[in-house]
Amino acid sequence: MSRPDAKGQLSRWLDRFALAAAAADRSALLALFAEDCYWRDLLAFTWNLHTAEGREGVGDLIDATFARTRPSAFTVQDEASETDGITEGFFTFETTEARCRGYVRLKGDLCWTLLTSMEELKGFEEKKGRRRVMGAQHGVHRDRQTWLERRQEEEASLGSETQPYCLIVGAGQGGLALGARLKRLGVPTLIVEAHDRPGDAWRKRYKSLCLHDPVWYDHMPYLPFPDDWPVYTPKDKMADWLEAYAKVMELDVWSSSPCRKASFDAERGQWSVEVLREGRPVTLAPRHLILATGMSGIPNEPAFPGMDLFAGEQCHSSRYKSSEAYSGKKCVVIGSNNSAHDICADLWEKGADVTMVQRTSTHVATSDALFRFGTSRLYSEDALERGIDTDKADLLNASVPYRLMPEILKPVTASIKAADADLLERLEKAGFLLDFGDDESGLFLKYMRRGSGYYIDVGASDLIANGDIKLKSGVGVREITRNGVVLSDGTELPADLIVYATGYGSMNGWAARLISQEVADRVGKVWGLGSDTTKDPGPWEGEPRNMWKPTRQDGLWFHGGNLHQSRHYSQYLALQLKARLEGIPTPVFGIPPVHHLA
Amino acid sequence: MSRPDAKGQLSRWLDRFALAAAAADRSALLALFAEDCYWRDLLAFTWNLHTAEGREGVGDLIDATFARTRPSAFTVQDEASETDGITEGFFTFETTEARCRGYVRLKGDLCWTLLTSMEELKGFEEKKGRRRVMGAQHGVHRDRQTWLERRQEEEASLGSETQPYCLIVGAGQGGLALGARLKRLGVPTLIVEAHDRPGDAWRKRYKSLCLHDPVWYDHMPYLPFPDDWPVYTPKDKMADWLEAYAKVMELDVWSSSPCRKASFDAERGQWSVEVLREGRPVTLAPRHLILATGMSGIPNEPAFPGMDLFAGEQCHSSRYKSSEAYSGKKCVVIGSNNSAHDICADLWEKGADVTMVQRTSTHVATSDALFRFGTSRLYSEDALERGIDTDKADLLNASVPYRLMPEILKPVTASIKAADADLLERLEKAGFLLDFGDDESGLFLKYMRRGSGYYIDVGASDLIANGDIKLKSGVGVREITRNGVVLSDGTELPADLIVYATGYGSMNGWAARLISQEVADRVGKVWGLGSDTTKDPGPWEGEPRNMWKPTRQDGLWFHGGNLHQSRHYSQYLALQLKARLEGIPTPVFGIPPVHHLA
Repeated sequence: MSRPDAKGQLSRWLDRFALAAAAADRSALLALFAEDCYWRDLLAFTWNLHTAEGREGVGDLIDATFARTRPSAFTVQDEASETDGITEGFFTFETTEARCRGYVRLKGDLCWTLLTSMEELKGFEEKKGRRRVMGAQHGVHRDRQTWLERRQEEEASLGSETQPYCLIVGAGQGGLALGARLKRLGVPTLIVEAHDRPGDAWRKRYKSLCLHDPVWYDHMPYLPFPDDWPVYTPKDKMADWLEAYAKVMELDVWSSSPCRKASFDAERGQWSVEVLREGRPVTLAPRHLILATGMSGIPNEPAFPGMDLFAGEQCHSSRYKSSEAYSGKKCVVIGSNNSAHDICADLWEKGADVTMVQRTSTHVATSDALFRFGTSRLYSEDALERGIDTDKADLLNASVPYRLMPEILKPVTASIKAADADLLERLEKAGFLLDFGDDESGLFLKYMRRGSGYYIDVGASDLIANGDIKLKSGVGVREITRNGVVLSDGTELPADLIVYATGYGSMNGWAARLISQEVADRVGKVWGLGSDTTKDPGPWEGEPRNMWKPTRQDGLWFHGGNLHQSRHYSQYLALQLKARLEGIPTPVFGIPPVHHLA
Repeated sequence: MSRPDAKGQLSRWLDRFALAAAAADRSALLALFAEDCYWRDLLAFTWNLHTAEGREGVGDLIDATFARTRPSAFTVQDEASETDGITEGFFTFETTEARCRGYVRLKGDLCWTLLTSMEELKGFEEKKGRRRVMGAQHGVHRDRQTWLERRQEEEASLGSETQPYCLIVGAGQGGLALGARLKRLGVPTLIVEAHDRPGDAWRKRYKSLCLHDPVWYDHMPYLPFPDDWPVYTPKDKMADWLEAYAKVMELDVWSSSPCRKASFDAERGQWSVEVLREGRPVTLAPRHLILATGMSGIPNEPAFPGMDLFAGEQCHSSRYKSSEAYSGKKCVVIGSNNSAHDICADLWEKGADVTMVQRTSTHVATSDALFRFGTSRLYSEDALERGIDTDKADLLNASVPYRLMPEILKPVTASIKAADADLLERLEKAGFLLDFGDDESGLFLKYMRRGSGYYIDVGASDLIANGDIKLKSGVGVREITRNGVVLSDGTELPADLIVYATGYGSMNGWAARLISQEVADRVGKVWGLGSDTTKDPGPWEGEPRNMWKPTRQDGLWFHGGNLHQSRHYSQYLALQLKARLEGIPTPVFGIPPVHHLA
């Protein structure tokens, strides 16, 4: 609801905040916050992704950052709104070093939640709009270099005569989104990709795979999908898009170039990274190493007794390609999350005899209900009509502190559950074990806490409810035999194919594999909020661990997540790297201690 | 200037128009037009690109089209404005078959200029926004076809098991823009390209080439350039963009596939087209053949006496690639338009001894002044700030009838001339022959009338003024000798290289070459307005001849022009082809007689 005085109320709060900030009046600043308050800062003050909670947290943030950042020029942007006593809206402001935006929610006259986001570094703006380059070098110049010659020279010298400042491992959406942002900021960057082509991380998965998030959530930075792009992008179309993206964004990508080993020379302040470039070893010396290898990390390879005896085909879900060969064959899929469901359906569609082994409960929500009650609020044609473009949606999305999410998401989850009631009931009747998160807060928090434990239903649940896909639930795997799987209840499942949809480890595993266990342990667990729920042990951290922000290893960064996260958080990671390249001081406030190793 | 009553005035005129239209009251309709009036219709009424002039022309248009189209639902769109007694603004309306937009300029209460533009056919809307496809086929389906399988099958069958409805010759901006629009409309289309890759028509030209139009003018349909795209796109970057465009738009392009011969079977109503697909002859049977081979047509190969005796290198400008080999060599460029200037500068930059032979006068305007006083009004960051996006700019651009352009463009040309005064004076002192169009109306009309006769200065003029590029002007070529060029005044120019920048013929030449002289003659001259100025003989036609609209040969169409034209007019050509595919009656009003053969 938009009320005429909402904007005025917001302006007054901002004016008071600006005045108190200018006067460096700590107590006046704190008096503008409610007892129960949250300030999420994305670089603007902390050079970190940090959520301060309560007046004490806010006070610490102010003490540590205001003298340096001297925020000013606070201005309400667009309209404000007021609903149920909460007044909220966007604003812009500046610090000594950057132009920033924010979003604030007031309860009465006091701040309940505050988001502050760095948008661009002063003096290091992207060359876009009016700042764009000319392209043609007008006038005449002896020995002029054309665009093509310059590109070819850059490509030829990068990694040999010249060293990249940033080395990104992985040319999926994460690596490419970050690469595009760094390119715009003029940060010399090389992306290395083990597969043959950018986008292969999608292209080489099982053939029925599609994005489970809708198109409005999935745009890459700077180059939105055309307006006829399908709601759920098929994997090969996504791969082609990413490949074209890398090309037109002029990203320097080495394909067929797995990264083998990396070590940090603390004295020289640079990495030594061994890359096998199309079979030829190359050693690179970047200042920063960014692992964009997929937030899912390294496959959890199962180690069931007897696997070496199995006479059929077996593979981890990450290596499962296609159901082509399995018509009429017996297939067992161990696991009950997204990939397990997709693969079961894929096999069933080809006429295989499929059994899913569900060891623990799974959160199931239909794609349709998730979209209707969840994603569409910010990412949809409706949202666009309400003036919420991708950019605004990302900030609004970021404006909700993680601590508040469970309470906000429980009713959303309840609505989704109600919409799916019929299917869920039939699933339970078929013996399927359901959950909706430890605290019934639903899918998004399961994703943020543990990155697993759910299926976004696009059809397989119906097959399970029908019995078309057979189900064994609440059982473990005792052993694999020559002919199949023996479950913990003694059941024997004969199998021609076993797919282990046993998930992935933390991205920390990539650091251990590429660098060392010592560095992996120094950095600690990656992902998760410290929510003290299943697979996300406490204490509370308030932000995803180690993602998109400084880690305890100088020059080591983790980047990734879904398309939305790859898009939005690449902005902050790119600004952090640019600031370091330009020698701008970046004192980081609030690096949390390491509580867990992996 | 926006006045509060401008919108009201526009609304009242539209209401009266709607009322008279509903009542089929011819005289009431005509009474709404000024004596001096122009109605440019882009398909909405005429299924043609047609400008009616004067009340008589308007009356004829109404008589021929209103009973069928029954226009209704006229609504002012956005704001209206009033300046110097002219009230103008956008509106929307419908006909029986389509949703349309328009732009009207009123003098007092009467219409001075009217634009009506068909936007989409009812029942055949593009699947964009809320209409977009799902992509993932939710639910489970035995023997489901994935996106990739479907694409591969389409690609494999098109041109063999299935025939394209449309065959487009040429995968430059014209062919690709039209291909993208036809793809969205579900019109089976194949694009054949003689070169190895889409975009090669740019890639394979001389290396210093850049677009001479600024980026805001140059967007392709549906996928605008990112906001950091250079103002003047270098040719190879443009080529890469077009290649990526073809891929992500899922266009069916056969590369390395020159079109050899085409003939129309009037009884079967289809073409028989011989294409050499990567060396293998294939015969295609499309219903429609679209020549998107470049509005410049076939190179005017010179036939100077003695060319066979010349001992050095000689080529038409279209085959000139690079100055690499000519450092210190004597080079003569015959011609004085864009390519001639670019090539002279390119050679000079490599240290060649260059002479330009200017046979007749040339219109020179600096790129900067053209942009400042011309293009930027509708296509620039300023225009975007004023709310004029590409879509609105294209309609505004189209809203000025060609008949009025000379008077409107003369003062613009005068401003450009004044801004360039210093350079122009120096050029004249150097002996360069200048003109500004027969009627001083400038560059854009030279382009629309004859497609030649100008240089958009990006640096070469200064070299000519300085004498760095030598100039021989006002002379013809008498003969070529073993050692160089002999001019009509007897001067001998020794040469290691002769470049013939002698221009291009009409697109009609492509029809003659691919189809037959008979068909080329039936269709007549392509391009030009009938302005009765140099190289554009009368009588007046009011629209470019044969471009983007029905010709006198069933199923034969010409498409092309600059990036702006390729983008905007592909919309109308695509709608014409879609209507024919769907069997919607398309009675064409006002096909002009053929006055000139080539």
